[in-house]
Amino acid sequence: METMGRHIIAELWGCAVDKLNNLQYIEQVFIDAAHLAGAEVVKVAFHLFAPQGISGVVIISESHLTIHSFPEHGYASIDVYTCGVRMDPNVAVSYIAKSLEAKSSEMIELPRGMGEIQIRTRRALKGLSSS
Amino acid sequence: METMGRHIIAELWGCAVDKLNNLQYIEQVFIDAAHLAGAEVVKVAFHLFAPQGISGVVIISESHLTIHSFPEHGYASIDVYTCGVRMDPNVAVSYIAKSLEAKSSEMIELPRGMGEIQIRTRRALKGLSSS
Repeated sequence: METMGRHIIAELWGCAVDKLNNLQYIEQVFIDAAHLAGAEVVKVAFHLFAPQGISGVVIISESHLTIHSFPEHGYASIDVYTCGVRMDPNVAVSYIAKSLEAKSSEMIELPRGMGEIQIRTRRALKGLSSS
Repeated sequence: METMGRHIIAELWGCAVDKLNNLQYIEQVFIDAAHLAGAEVVKVAFHLFAPQGISGVVIISESHLTIHSFPEHGYASIDVYTCGVRMDPNVAVSYIAKSLEAKSSEMIELPRGMGEIQIRTRRALKGLSSS
Protein backbone atom coordinates (compact mmCIF):
# COMPACT_ATOMS: atom_id res chain seq x y z
CA MET A 1 0.00 0.00 0.00
CA GLU A 2 1.22 3.48 -0.82
CA THR A 3 2.13 5.75 2.08
CA MET A 4 0.75 8.80 0.30
CA GLY A 5 -2.22 10.30 2.08
CA ARG A 6 -4.38 13.41 2.31
CA HIS A 7 -5.16 14.74 5.77
CA ILE A 8 -7.77 17.46 6.19
CA ILE A 9 -7.86 19.32 9.48
CA ALA A 10 -11.10 21.20 9.91
CA GLU A 11 -12.21 23.61 12.60
CA LEU A 12 -15.99 23.99 12.64
CA TRP A 13 -17.59 26.84 14.56
CA GLY A 14 -21.16 27.88 15.20
CA CYS A 15 -22.41 24.29 15.02
CA ALA A 16 -25.84 23.18 16.25
CA VAL A 17 -25.32 22.62 19.98
CA ASP A 18 -27.81 19.77 20.30
CA LYS A 19 -26.12 17.86 17.47
CA LEU A 20 -22.68 18.30 19.00
CA ASN A 21 -23.89 16.41 22.05
CA ASN A 22 -25.89 13.67 20.31
CA LEU A 23 -23.79 10.51 20.29
CA GLN A 24 -25.99 8.45 17.99
CA TYR A 25 -26.35 11.29 15.50
CA ILE A 26 -22.62 12.04 15.31
CA GLU A 27 -21.67 8.39 15.04
CA GLN A 28 -24.08 7.94 12.11
CA VAL A 29 -22.88 11.16 10.43
CA PHE A 30 -19.31 9.93 10.58
CA ILE A 31 -20.12 6.47 9.25
CA ASP A 32 -22.15 8.04 6.44
CA ALA A 33 -19.34 10.52 5.70
CA ALA A 34 -16.86 7.65 5.38
CA HIS A 35 -19.17 5.77 3.03
CA LEU A 36 -19.87 8.88 0.95
CA ALA A 37 -16.15 9.32 0.41
CA GLY A 38 -15.94 5.70 -0.73
CA ALA A 39 -14.17 4.37 2.36
CA GLU A 40 -14.48 0.97 3.98
CA VAL A 41 -15.34 1.24 7.70
CA VAL A 42 -13.18 -0.99 9.94
CA LYS A 43 -13.79 0.20 13.54
CA VAL A 44 -16.11 2.69 15.18
CA ALA A 45 -15.51 4.13 18.67
CA PHE A 46 -17.38 7.10 20.14
CA HIS A 47 -17.61 8.40 23.68
CA LEU A 48 -19.97 10.90 25.32
CA PHE A 49 -18.34 12.85 28.14
CA ALA A 50 -20.08 14.17 31.23
CA PRO A 51 -21.38 16.81 31.43
CA GLN A 52 -21.04 17.20 27.64
CA GLY A 53 -18.85 16.72 24.58
CA ILE A 54 -18.15 13.79 22.28
CA SER A 55 -14.92 12.24 21.08
CA GLY A 56 -14.92 9.61 18.42
CA VAL A 57 -13.20 7.90 15.56
CA VAL A 58 -14.09 5.87 12.53
CA ILE A 59 -11.11 3.82 11.40
CA ILE A 60 -11.33 3.11 7.71
CA SER A 61 -9.19 0.88 5.50
CA GLU A 62 -7.83 4.14 4.13
CA SER A 63 -6.95 5.76 7.56
CA HIS A 64 -9.41 7.63 9.83
CA LEU A 65 -12.03 10.25 10.64
CA THR A 66 -12.10 11.83 14.11
CA ILE A 67 -14.17 14.37 16.01
CA HIS A 68 -13.93 16.20 19.30
CA SER A 69 -17.01 18.30 20.02
CA PHE A 70 -17.37 21.16 22.49
CA PRO A 71 -21.11 21.90 22.61
CA GLU A 72 -20.63 24.79 25.03
CA HIS A 73 -18.52 26.56 22.39
CA GLY A 74 -20.41 25.40 19.27
CA TYR A 75 -17.06 24.01 18.15
CA ALA A 76 -16.05 20.73 16.56
CA SER A 77 -12.51 19.69 15.77
CA ILE A 78 -12.49 17.34 12.77
CA ASP A 79 -9.81 15.25 11.05
CA VAL A 80 -10.34 13.27 7.89
CA TYR A 81 -7.30 11.39 6.67
CA THR A 82 -7.40 9.16 3.61
CA CYS A 83 -4.62 7.16 2.00
CA GLY A 84 -4.14 6.71 -1.70
CA VAL A 85 -5.42 8.74 -4.61
CA ARG A 86 -8.83 7.16 -5.06
CA MET A 87 -10.69 8.98 -2.28
CA ASP A 88 -11.38 12.66 -1.74
CA PRO A 89 -11.50 13.49 1.99
CA ASN A 90 -13.21 16.80 1.16
CA VAL A 91 -16.39 14.87 0.41
CA ALA A 92 -16.50 13.60 3.98
CA VAL A 93 -15.55 16.93 5.58
CA SER A 94 -18.19 18.84 3.64
CA TYR A 95 -20.86 16.34 4.65
CA ILE A 96 -19.84 16.55 8.32
CA ALA A 97 -19.80 20.39 8.29
CA LYS A 98 -23.25 20.46 6.75
CA SER A 99 -24.62 17.83 9.13
CA LEU A 100 -23.39 19.76 12.17
CA GLU A 101 -24.77 23.02 10.70
CA ALA A 102 -21.41 24.76 11.02
CA LYS A 103 -21.75 28.49 10.41
CA SER A 104 -18.05 28.97 9.71
CA SER A 105 -15.10 26.73 9.20
CA GLU A 106 -11.43 26.64 8.50
CA MET A 107 -9.78 23.72 6.78
CA ILE A 108 -6.26 22.89 5.77
CA GLU A 109 -5.01 19.91 3.81
CA LEU A 110 -1.70 18.29 4.65
CA PRO A 111 0.02 15.68 2.51
CA ARG A 112 1.09 12.62 4.55
CA GLY A 113 3.67 9.96 3.83
CA MET A 114 5.45 12.02 1.20
CA GLY A 115 8.32 13.71 3.02
CA GLU A 116 8.13 17.26 4.29
CA ILE A 117 4.73 18.23 5.69
CA GLN A 118 3.33 21.36 4.10
CA ILE A 119 -0.05 23.04 4.18
CA ARG A 120 -1.26 22.26 0.67
CA THR A 121 -4.55 24.13 0.62
CA ARG A 122 -6.41 26.37 3.02
CA ARG A 123 -10.08 27.22 2.97
CA ALA A 124 -12.06 29.44 5.28
CA LEU A 125 -15.79 29.56 4.85
CA LYS A 126 -18.47 31.70 6.37
CA GLY A 127 -22.15 30.97 6.24
CA LEU A 128 -21.81 27.27 5.49
CA SER A 129 -25.26 26.83 6.92
CA SER A 130 -27.18 29.90 5.88
CA SER A 131 -30.62 28.30 5.83
CA MET B 1 -13.73 22.61 28.68
CA GLU B 2 -11.42 24.84 26.69
CA THR B 3 -11.26 24.31 22.94
CA MET B 4 -7.55 25.06 22.85
CA GLY B 5 -5.49 22.06 21.81
CA ARG B 6 -2.07 21.01 20.56
CA HIS B 7 -1.93 18.61 17.62
CA ILE B 8 1.35 16.99 16.64
CA ILE B 9 1.59 15.36 13.25
CA ALA B 10 4.57 13.07 13.01
CA GLU B 11 5.99 11.16 10.10
CA LEU B 12 8.27 8.34 11.25
CA TRP B 13 10.56 6.63 8.77
CA GLY B 14 13.00 3.76 9.04
CA CYS B 15 11.01 2.09 11.81
CA ALA B 16 11.53 -1.52 12.91
CA VAL B 17 9.42 -3.51 10.44
CA ASP B 18 8.46 -6.28 12.89
CA LYS B 19 7.18 -3.70 15.39
CA LEU B 20 5.10 -1.91 12.76
CA ASN B 21 3.17 -5.13 12.22
CA ASN B 22 2.81 -6.22 15.85
CA LEU B 23 -0.71 -5.34 17.00
CA GLN B 24 -0.24 -6.11 20.69
CA TYR B 25 3.03 -4.19 20.84
CA ILE B 26 1.71 -1.08 19.11
CA GLU B 27 -1.48 -1.04 21.18
CA GLN B 28 0.56 -1.19 24.39
CA VAL B 29 3.00 1.49 23.18
CA PHE B 30 0.11 3.84 22.47
CA ILE B 31 -1.59 3.22 25.82
CA ASP B 32 1.74 3.74 27.59
CA ALA B 33 2.40 6.90 25.54
CA ALA B 34 -0.96 8.32 26.58
CA HIS B 35 -0.30 7.56 30.24
CA LEU B 36 3.23 9.00 30.07
CA ALA B 37 1.79 12.26 28.79
CA GLY B 38 -0.65 12.27 31.71
CA ALA B 39 -3.75 11.43 29.69
CA GLU B 40 -6.79 9.41 30.73
CA VAL B 41 -7.52 6.58 28.27
CA VAL B 42 -11.18 6.34 27.26
CA LYS B 43 -11.32 3.97 24.24
CA VAL B 44 -8.81 1.79 22.44
CA ALA B 45 -9.35 0.46 18.91
CA PHE B 46 -6.65 -1.14 16.77
CA HIS B 47 -6.85 -3.19 13.59
CA LEU B 48 -4.32 -5.41 11.80
CA PHE B 49 -4.77 -5.42 8.06
CA ALA B 50 -4.00 -8.33 5.73
CA PRO B 51 -1.36 -8.82 4.49
CA GLN B 52 0.16 -6.18 6.77
CA GLY B 53 -0.21 -2.76 8.36
CA ILE B 54 -1.95 -1.51 11.49
CA SER B 55 -4.40 1.32 12.07
CA GLY B 56 -5.41 2.32 15.53
CA VAL B 57 -6.55 4.96 17.93
CA VAL B 58 -6.47 5.68 21.62
CA ILE B 59 -9.18 8.14 22.54
CA ILE B 60 -8.22 10.05 25.64
CA SER B 61 -10.21 12.48 27.74
CA GLU B 62 -7.96 15.11 26.20
CA SER B 63 -8.47 14.08 22.50
CA HIS B 64 -6.60 11.26 20.68
CA LEU B 65 -3.53 9.40 19.50
CA THR B 66 -3.59 7.59 16.13
CA ILE B 67 -1.27 5.46 14.04
CA HIS B 68 -1.25 4.05 10.53
CA SER B 69 1.72 1.76 9.94
CA PHE B 70 3.15 0.64 6.60
CA PRO B 71 5.67 -2.10 7.46
CA GLU B 72 6.68 -2.54 3.82
CA HIS B 73 7.91 1.08 3.81
CA GLY B 74 9.20 1.28 7.41
CA TYR B 75 6.79 4.18 7.78
CA ALA B 76 4.34 5.16 10.52
CA SER B 77 1.97 8.10 10.37
CA ILE B 78 1.29 9.40 13.88
CA ASP B 79 -1.08 11.99 15.35
CA VAL B 80 -1.11 13.05 18.98
CA TYR B 81 -3.70 15.65 19.81
CA THR B 82 -4.17 16.93 23.37
CA CYS B 83 -6.58 19.54 24.66
CA GLY B 84 -5.78 22.05 27.35
CA VAL B 85 -2.46 23.33 28.62
CA ARG B 86 -1.68 20.64 31.17
CA MET B 87 -0.37 17.96 28.82
CA ASP B 88 2.59 17.97 26.46
CA PRO B 89 1.89 15.81 23.39
CA ASN B 90 5.63 15.77 22.61
CA VAL B 91 6.14 13.36 25.50
CA ALA B 92 3.88 10.82 23.80
CA VAL B 93 5.31 11.35 20.30
CA SER B 94 8.89 10.96 21.49
CA TYR B 95 8.04 7.74 23.30
CA ILE B 96 6.28 6.33 20.22
CA ALA B 97 9.17 7.26 17.90
CA LYS B 98 11.65 5.60 20.23
CA SER B 99 9.48 2.51 20.68
CA LEU B 100 9.15 2.03 16.92
CA GLU B 101 12.92 2.63 16.50
CA ALA B 102 12.34 5.38 13.94
CA LYS B 103 15.59 6.36 12.23
CA SER B 104 14.25 9.71 11.04
CA SER B 105 11.15 11.75 11.66
CA GLU B 106 9.40 14.93 10.81
CA MET B 107 6.96 16.56 13.20
CA ILE B 108 4.84 19.66 13.08
CA GLU B 109 2.63 21.10 15.78
CA LEU B 110 -0.67 22.75 14.95
CA PRO B 111 -2.77 24.73 17.39
CA ARG B 112 -6.41 23.60 17.43
CA GLY B 113 -9.54 25.39 18.57
CA MET B 114 -7.93 28.82 18.50
CA GLY B 115 -8.84 30.28 15.12
CA GLU B 116 -6.50 30.17 12.15
CA ILE B 117 -4.50 26.96 11.86
CA GLN B 118 -0.78 27.58 11.60
CA ILE B 119 2.27 25.39 11.79
CA ARG B 120 3.64 26.41 15.17
CA THR B 121 6.81 24.37 15.32
CA ARG B 122 8.60 22.02 12.98
CA ARG B 123 11.21 19.44 13.87
CA ALA B 124 13.07 17.06 11.63
CA LEU B 125 15.32 14.52 13.26
CA LYS B 126 17.80 12.05 11.88
CA GLY B 127 19.25 9.20 13.83
CA LEU B 128 16.52 9.03 16.45
CA SER B 129 17.45 5.43 17.01
CA SER B 130 21.19 5.31 16.57
CA SER B 131 21.82 2.33 18.79
